[in-house]
Amino acid sequence: MKAFALIILGLLSAAAAAGTADIKFPDLAQTPPMGWNSWNTFGCNIDENLIRQTTDAMVSSGMRDAGYVYVNIDDCWHGERDANGFIQPDPRRFPAGMKALADYVHSRGMKIGIYSDAGATTCGGHPGSQGHEYQDALQYARWGIDLLKYDWCATEDRTPAEAYRTMARALRAAGRPMVFSICEWGDNKPWLWAQPLGHLWRTTGDITNCWDCVVSHGSWESHGVMAILDKQAGLRKYAGPGHWNDPDMMEVGNLPSVNEDRAHFAMWAMLAAPLIAGNDVRTMTAATRAILTNRDVIAIDQDSLGISGFPYRKEAGLEIWFKPLSGSAWAVALLNRASTPQKVQFDWKKEDVQDALNDLRPQFDRQVYSLTELFSHTGGSTAKPLDVTVPARDVLLYRLEKIAL
Amino acid sequence: MKAFALIILGLLSAAAAAGTADIKFPDLAQTPPMGWNSWNTFGCNIDENLIRQTTDAMVSSGMRDAGYVYVNIDDCWHGERDANGFIQPDPRRFPAGMKALADYVHSRGMKIGIYSDAGATTCGGHPGSQGHEYQDALQYARWGIDLLKYDWCATEDRTPAEAYRTMARALRAAGRPMVFSICEWGDNKPWLWAQPLGHLWRTTGDITNCWDCVVSHGSWESHGVMAILDKQAGLRKYAGPGHWNDPDMMEVGNLPSVNEDRAHFAMWAMLAAPLIAGNDVRTMTAATRAILTNRDVIAIDQDSLGISGFPYRKEAGLEIWFKPLSGSAWAVALLNRASTPQKVQFDWKKEDVQDALNDLRPQFDRQVYSLTELFSHTGGSTAKPLDVTVPARDVLLYRLEKIAL
Repeated sequence: MKAFALIILGLLSAAAAAGTADIKFPDLAQTPPMGWNSWNTFGCNIDENLIRQTTDAMVSSGMRDAGYVYVNIDDCWHGERDANGFIQPDPRRFPAGMKALADYVHSRGMKIGIYSDAGATTCGGHPGSQGHEYQDALQYARWGIDLLKYDWCATEDRTPAEAYRTMARALRAAGRPMVFSICEWGDNKPWLWAQPLGHLWRTTGDITNCWDCVVSHGSWESHGVMAILDKQAGLRKYAGPGHWNDPDMMEVGNLPSVNEDRAHFAMWAMLAAPLIAGNDVRTMTAATRAILTNRDVIAIDQDSLGISGFPYRKEAGLEIWFKPLSGSAWAVALLNRASTPQKVQFDWKKEDVQDALNDLRPQFDRQVYSLTELFSHTGGSTAKPLDVTVPARDVLLYRLEKIAL
Repeated sequence: MKAFALIILGLLSAAAAAGTADIKFPDLAQTPPMGWNSWNTFGCNIDENLIRQTTDAMVSSGMRDAGYVYVNIDDCWHGERDANGFIQPDPRRFPAGMKALADYVHSRGMKIGIYSDAGATTCGGHPGSQGHEYQDALQYARWGIDLLKYDWCATEDRTPAEAYRTMARALRAAGRPMVFSICEWGDNKPWLWAQPLGHLWRTTGDITNCWDCVVSHGSWESHGVMAILDKQAGLRKYAGPGHWNDPDMMEVGNLPSVNEDRAHFAMWAMLAAPLIAGNDVRTMTAATRAILTNRDVIAIDQDSLGISGFPYRKEAGLEIWFKPLSGSAWAVALLNRASTPQKVQFDWKKEDVQDALNDLRPQFDRQVYSLTELFSHTGGSTAKPLDVTVPARDVLLYRLEKIAL
């Protein structure tokens, strides 16, 4: 029947208006979320011991205090639904239950994330949330979950905006503030519709632990960190406080060299990307730990302006990126994508750098900036041209601050 | 993540295959469903007393024994969802609860239907099932519901096939056989995708209680019975046992004249349409009761072949329809759409009637059929030409049976 259509018209207008207003929980993820996720290293080989040990390791390694507060359980935590349809964890992998695990994570001063899927099943074939959205959101809230990563497998002909909007509403209805991490792989341009729904949205398919490879998995491909970086072109305007482009979880610690790990981390910071570690933090090397907990680099990522960086120059495997920071500061990354070292000469005063999107430009012509390289902690200034060598597949990452004259 | 995509590809292939296999409960609605629905006469003015009284009236009037077994509650039965998200009836309108009401309907040898919507709200602004599908289906099953009418208000950008497939799966998962009545108004050609999902699907917007009017409601229109009839053109091939075109609930008893009621009922039977009464059966006139319980007409509708009739000739407000029946019988309707009586002459032997879709044709050239007019119970045969007058806005409805020579 349709006899209430005049009333309905009003309701739909309200709903359409709601479609442009934020549905997601406000005030969360004002800077890019930081944490860890089980998938990149462990896949389905997860249990509550891994989550507890990882939580402990994130505390003892200093990761928590550096800002990595989300401990995110990816796919394969699921058991069956109970007689009322409420999802339960796998009793063999999570015998103490999700509430107890969340309580433990919270007791360590951290937050806990979980994973589901907008289709009938998850990518791993476990129960999906399609048709169970409100019930699942309520269950997560009751467990004390703080973040939901929501995948896109087995969705058939479902409309992405409808699917993510329905879960966003369910999360709001459940009442517990949760970061909503939209994992739609970028196929349907989520940057155009996801901002009112989620706090971050994947822009691409999956990352993999190589520099610039493409790995075929039959029906789909995963990409190395440089390929993922390239796929961010044109998207910076969609990111900002509370709504972030997500170039996928990090492979820092999983790449073949420390140089690559460093460059990967630096560029994720330049993008203002979520910093979700994907390595085994229990056994990571001191070098990996040093990269992940580098507070100066993290500060580039977490800068309160929330502006994603941009490539100023790209030439023969060498890219120069700029990122505006609060306090009229700037970050500059010299990214060497090549397999051999490259010399870089850069005369600040002769360059015309500008972030046209935000009407921001450094004043190199009438202002001297101090330079600090954030991995080596060496200094300098823009008073003289930069003349440096960037190692193969590595980065030099500078913070520029105005020097009071 | 996507690392299970090879497995997923298999799952999706299975799901795609499932998309063509029936999801709906099998073996239900092998003939068009018959019953009553609260909407056309009562709108939101419903309560458990009305449903009980209507059930009693359907028994005492002979409607139940004529085949009208579904007592369907339309919109506005809803209360709030409980703390676990399970929908509850309005405690003022249904103080004894839905389980008690279903038990009562069942105790009278009848079945009970209920109503929901694929959007966030129903057309009347009550809680919709979007994101609650499995939980709602489970609740209906626990109450003992036998049929779900599922509406399309407030669905925004939702994909119809996805929405109805999700509820169809939820109904199957709940385990209680229910007829699934898809009410999508025909906007997205449900005849092309609804057959695996539901037992009947609305082909049009709402019917209204007039002969051939169009009533504007601002953003949408409702249509009189002849306009609804015209909108069935081209759809007969999609109907058959277990899957029916639904030209909406009937206005028999609500139209201005008995002639119109009779013509409406006859044409719904010729279409093999669901026969869902929409009048107040507690107070209906003897004439309305006689039409609705006419077993000969009902037999045309409920014929086991399940073939929808077709117009053989249309001229100046006079239409001649044929419908193949089991046992090599035929139904023939002479429909006078005009406001004045019309003479009809029809020499059977000179006509070339055929149902090309089903490779069926009556053998008027070498076979005599008996004729029985199903409202007047007068007889005749095809041995001589028909020469009759059809009253204004009325019908003559014949059953033709081969006469053994």
